Amino acid sequence: MEGRGVECGSNRGRVVEKSVTRNIKLVLEYDGAAFYGFQRQPRHHTVQETLEKALSQLLNAPVRIHAASGRTDTGVHAMHQVVNFKTVSPLATHTLQRGLNALLPKTLAVRTAEEVEASFHARYDARFKVYEYRIWNDAVRSPLRAGHAWHVSQKLDRKAMRQAMAALKGRHDFRSFCAAHGSAKTTVRTIRRLSLRRQDAMLFFRVEADGFLYHMVRNIVGTLVEVGRGKIRPEDVRKILRACDRKQAGPTAPPGGLTLASVTY
Amino acid sequence: MEGRGVECGSNRGRVVEKSVTRNIKLVLEYDGAAFYGFQRQPRHHTVQETLEKALSQLLNAPVRIHAASGRTDTGVHAMHQVVNFKTVSPLATHTLQRGLNALLPKTLAVRTAEEVEASFHARYDARFKVYEYRIWNDAVRSPLRAGHAWHVSQKLDRKAMRQAMAALKGRHDFRSFCAAHGSAKTTVRTIRRLSLRRQDAMLFFRVEADGFLYHMVRNIVGTLVEVGRGKIRPEDVRKILRACDRKQAGPTAPPGGLTLASVTY
Repeated sequence: MEGRGVECGSNRGRVVEKSVTRNIKLVLEYDGAAFYGFQRQPRHHTVQETLEKALSQLLNAPVRIHAASGRTDTGVHAMHQVVNFKTVSPLATHTLQRGLNALLPKTLAVRTAEEVEASFHARYDARFKVYEYRIWNDAVRSPLRAGHAWHVSQKLDRKAMRQAMAALKGRHDFRSFCAAHGSAKTTVRTIRRLSLRRQDAMLFFRVEADGFLYHMVRNIVGTLVEVGRGKIRPEDVRKILRACDRKQAGPTAPPGGLTLASVTY
Repeated sequence: MEGRGVECGSNRGRVVEKSVTRNIKLVLEYDGAAFYGFQRQPRHHTVQETLEKALSQLLNAPVRIHAASGRTDTGVHAMHQVVNFKTVSPLATHTLQRGLNALLPKTLAVRTAEEVEASFHARYDARFKVYEYRIWNDAVRSPLRAGHAWHVSQKLDRKAMRQAMAALKGRHDFRSFCAAHGSAKTTVRTIRRLSLRRQDAMLFFRVEADGFLYHMVRNIVGTLVEVGRGKIRPEDVRKILRACDRKQAGPTAPPGGLTLASVTY
């Protein structure tokens, strides 16, 4: 790919660079605790601002990125966030990646960088996304997992939680699990997979869907924990879903337990 | 155990508390990045100072703790650090644990609290300790593992490392792996187990020994990484050991990868 963006030709004796616009896809990993969410905001340190600043410095031109999940909150992590941007720079992608990783803070890294088709858009082309939510389910909080898991000290009934999870799978109107100030045109989404795995005292929820409403995963997990605690009956989760009313569902689980795990195109 | 420390009797009509000294053992977990090491130091925030302050507040008397590994450095974590202290307080151990966890910062927690024999000493009675060292062995650093693993980007020859590890097992004079300013009377230690496990790009070293010299694990790991990189031949590790000279071994691996994993009495 190196040099593909540049063609050199002779023009009245001078070498002229004919710029070709390239579309670059990056996979990012970041520690959400270090940022005020993903999206650029005035007077706040965000992932977007940090990355765009490093890109602009490296490519010597203003750069605007598009992200698969552009609205992740403060504290929400990413193992695999996808962004794309256009540039006329001929810089090889591996050089770009190394340069970015040298410029970026240790809380943010570019895992891969590749040139993609001009039409690729990290947000609009995303077919499925997977989020993971971790709960440290032990009487005692865990300092080494703080900020990466929600500490729930009460014993949770995993059987009841799994029963409730079954009701959430599939295509539904998830309005009951959408933050009041969500701005989505439609609140219908399809959950393809929803699983719960335990390893020692850590519970791992994984949710794969074609899209997520604002706070959807955190509201689902908050509701499932209420089921696990016996505060909501598992059979009532279907009713909560049908009510299309945020007030029917459980509280919003804290952001630190949430990680964007993958995006499929 | 509740109330065991107090006996009430009548003395000229007044109720007198006859104090009994109890010995309490605590198991701690902490995030080493939040502290300036374990040991109390003037003008520094240490684990010992933080715990003793909370204990003194809770028990309403000055408390001095003894730790299994009292000299762990800034950045070194603990999943299982053991301490003990004497008190005349009759407070039940589960109340003590809950009270401490409410007072302590989120970077430090008491995993268990129990009353033990008067003769128990967290440091002198420790028979074996296990340390774990993590290396993130990938071309790209990992923001979500930063501070909990050493990032080594070069490919490591694990077969050569395992060969070198075999030479370190058993009873040896580990002076070559002891920090110059170590103060141990003897530098002979016995490594009972030394293993290397890989999970994706993460390497986990576990070392079990009857005792550890200052920086011993970090110097061993630093040397093994030199072996993995091809800078030291695996068969030379035996010579390095026999030389009893710190300058022969590899560099000291950074503290963030190290965790005190368990202590056996």
